[in-house]
Amino acid sequence: MDLLALETPCLILDRGKLEKNISNMHKRMKTLGVNLRPHGKTAKNIDVLKMALEDQAGGITVSTLKEAEYYFSHNIIDIVYAVGIAPVKLDRVVALIKKGARIALILDSVEQVKFVAAKGQEYDVEIPVFIELDCDGHRSGVTLDDSLLLDIGNLLHNEEGVILNGVLTHAGESYNCKSVGEIRDMAETERAMAVKCSELLRKNGLPCPIVSVGSTPTANFAEDLTGVTEVRAGVFVFNDLVMAGLGVCDESDLALSVLTSIIGHQKRKRWVITDAGWMALSRDRGTASQKVDQGAGLVCNVEGQPLNDLIVSSTNQEHGIISNRMEKDIDWDSFEIGSMVRILPNHACATGAMYDRYYITDGSTDIIDIWYRINGW
Amino acid sequence: MDLLALETPCLILDRGKLEKNISNMHKRMKTLGVNLRPHGKTAKNIDVLKMALEDQAGGITVSTLKEAEYYFSHNIIDIVYAVGIAPVKLDRVVALIKKGARIALILDSVEQVKFVAAKGQEYDVEIPVFIELDCDGHRSGVTLDDSLLLDIGNLLHNEEGVILNGVLTHAGESYNCKSVGEIRDMAETERAMAVKCSELLRKNGLPCPIVSVGSTPTANFAEDLTGVTEVRAGVFVFNDLVMAGLGVCDESDLALSVLTSIIGHQKRKRWVITDAGWMALSRDRGTASQKVDQGAGLVCNVEGQPLNDLIVSSTNQEHGIISNRMEKDIDWDSFEIGSMVRILPNHACATGAMYDRYYITDGSTDIIDIWYRINGW
Repeated sequence: MDLLALETPCLILDRGKLEKNISNMHKRMKTLGVNLRPHGKTAKNIDVLKMALEDQAGGITVSTLKEAEYYFSHNIIDIVYAVGIAPVKLDRVVALIKKGARIALILDSVEQVKFVAAKGQEYDVEIPVFIELDCDGHRSGVTLDDSLLLDIGNLLHNEEGVILNGVLTHAGESYNCKSVGEIRDMAETERAMAVKCSELLRKNGLPCPIVSVGSTPTANFAEDLTGVTEVRAGVFVFNDLVMAGLGVCDESDLALSVLTSIIGHQKRKRWVITDAGWMALSRDRGTASQKVDQGAGLVCNVEGQPLNDLIVSSTNQEHGIISNRMEKDIDWDSFEIGSMVRILPNHACATGAMYDRYYITDGSTDIIDIWYRINGW
Repeated sequence: MDLLALETPCLILDRGKLEKNISNMHKRMKTLGVNLRPHGKTAKNIDVLKMALEDQAGGITVSTLKEAEYYFSHNIIDIVYAVGIAPVKLDRVVALIKKGARIALILDSVEQVKFVAAKGQEYDVEIPVFIELDCDGHRSGVTLDDSLLLDIGNLLHNEEGVILNGVLTHAGESYNCKSVGEIRDMAETERAMAVKCSELLRKNGLPCPIVSVGSTPTANFAEDLTGVTEVRAGVFVFNDLVMAGLGVCDESDLALSVLTSIIGHQKRKRWVITDAGWMALSRDRGTASQKVDQGAGLVCNVEGQPLNDLIVSSTNQEHGIISNRMEKDIDWDSFEIGSMVRILPNHACATGAMYDRYYITDGSTDIIDIWYRINGW
């Protein structure tokens, strides 16, 4: 089937680029001597995760219990649910453990240890738990100088119903770095902080078998990961304009794009109107704070080649407006009403979330497969 | 079932507020003497649309063909698909017409008339078509002074396979108004432009039975709709923080909220961490350009009462950060880890789009029903 026969808007995934992105990350992790624990939150699809797990230890990260259940149903056993745990989610966690999943939770408070331990005791299971560390002030986690670290560690070690699995941190601030040098420094900060916390736990007689760090930017630029046992990364599988803006990848590495039909010309305003609005692209404007603001996405021809300086300058629910960022005129003949273009997204996780499936290409306009996503919670 | 037993994040819909919002709009339309053609793109749910259609003529607006097919399967016949038509969508349109739907399209180019007419001729059906008008420079449509208006009108009137249904416009710029006075003026601009175009068509011997205008802000503040036959509006059913910021409703009229669990405290930073990130709230930041920036949403207690000055100041995929907009300290005891709060959204259409269902309350914390949404295209 040809891509031009698809109904728009829809999501196109270039398998060759996906393979290359994954292979690059595998090589990096091999050189650094650490295990990759890919994050399933970007693709939310088993075909992508299977590729990301090739020749790896086999564990993954998830952002929802729905992902955990889905990946487990596809025989992935070792799962880290990397969002601080809430009481209403524990029944599903226990159900997964009872079925044979090794699902680990993360937390950063004594209150959470208590309700997780109580649930473990109630169902007579041992729930593996990571202490979440805050390496960069980005959102959650305890810091090295906070007495909470040892308080939580001791409680996890002593309570029934829970096991201390180790420490976990995520350098989310790396998305806001302004240079590759900054990302490199951030990777070292992430590593050093996690390793120091693991050493503090061990010095106090607490086990810390796993030291887990990661974000796609820091994973790409870390130079040394001594003391780290695994790296988590998600968006590297697809890459996106935010990653390209950070220097993590080139625009030609972006595996995901939105196919859209041209539904109007506003010639006086030099606007091409498409049927890919924010419902199709997401409201993510991650490049707005970068050196090059890509609007709601960068316009490519139907073969996926970027068209210089054409961006989606504005979106409504089901309408996108394409214009030239230098305010130059449009070559109208290249954008016939009824024809199609492709849009590279700011943020692959956010754009992917608007769809239930990927149409797979091999780089040409042939659609060779359809892969489905698992959305929701 | 009590709301506190729900898994978070999830979407709560207050039926009493929904009923009041719909009733207010019905009263306005009755006073103005025009038919309401509710837009199904906000709720994407038949229960809400049935309420919005009570005592109305029965027609609706949709933003996707999936909505059209869904509402038609629930016996709604008269449907306007209010996004400029693309060739790849015509087979589904014809299939609906063949089944008995009166689905009308919109367009603003000669090219579109040609491919729609060709499809009508191919399948021996007459496809009803509106000429889309541009009343405010917002996105699509032809203007009164553009010769395209009559060119398209004549072509629609003379070609086989299409019928000229009338004119349609949407004052999308009303979302950017800075005062109620501006919205009132915008409503008059929208009306006057649509009526003048309909008169021009009629003066030139072309039929124009329907003159369709609408947006929730202009529908709320129009003082006179002489010459208009129907008003389209969508978000009025739920209302949201953007509408409250425009003066269209009060915060107490917001029918939709996101239920979220508190999963952490960052006491030094005065942050409460929740499990409602941008996946749960959407990336919409519609209030960012308004007088009061509500962040990614306004925080309420679990009963739905707004908590002064607490907003979602930042989001990641599955994390929300609540802080005080005046940078005051948090009353930590009111935000115990594991407890829940509710978040009022910037934009009901965007937040709704992240979910497959509504949990219905009657104003208390009792969940009295579940209503499903039809997402995608």
